Amino acid sequence: MADILRFPAPEPLWRDVLGEKLRAARTGRGETLTDTAARAGISPQYLSEIERGRKEPSSEMIAAVAGALGTSLVDLTSEVAEHLRGARDQTGAKDQRGAMLLAA
Amino acid sequence: MADILRFPAPEPLWRDVLGEKLRAARTGRGETLTDTAARAGISPQYLSEIERGRKEPSSEMIAAVAGALGTSLVDLTSEVAEHLRGARDQTGAKDQRGAMLLAA
Repeated sequence: MADILRFPAPEPLWRDVLGEKLRAARTGRGETLTDTAARAGISPQYLSEIERGRKEPSSEMIAAVAGALGTSLVDLTSEVAEHLRGARDQTGAKDQRGAMLLAA
Repeated sequence: MADILRFPAPEPLWRDVLGEKLRAARTGRGETLTDTAARAGISPQYLSEIERGRKEPSSEMIAAVAGALGTSLVDLTSEVAEHLRGARDQTGAKDQRGAMLLAA
């Protein structure tokens, strides 16, 4: 367990966190994959894969989906940064607890 | 001119702003493309294309280059968000000036 604490988990990947934020934006609007995908000009299957981090969306695709959701790249990148900061701080707190346990 | 002001420029693309931030991080460390690319395990040509927004880097590639530069996805996404916010606020200020000119 000390070894696990000594090597904190790597950061999540960009497409995984982005996908989560896109899904949250869509469900927050009460929309189905079909609704949003139609406005973004892509298939619901493809949007679903983006949301689950299975496909790496191009920058143009990110802009199209953001536009379809009434959001923007600035808001999405801010949300991703905030999410990663939260994840990092949690890991840091865990490491600190581990260090305290080891020191005790 | 009024028409230009009425339709603000679209947001820059993710890969363009990300590329700028990666280049700034590398040059800030006083490194050549060859130095950084070697540590990231990619060719200097490919890194150069990423920095200029010519290639869409995968999430794994972003993580590798960030790691090679001693930075992280949380820092990069924060910088990209800040950059886009600055660009948006400038456009907003320009629009407001335009609106004031039109109203005068």
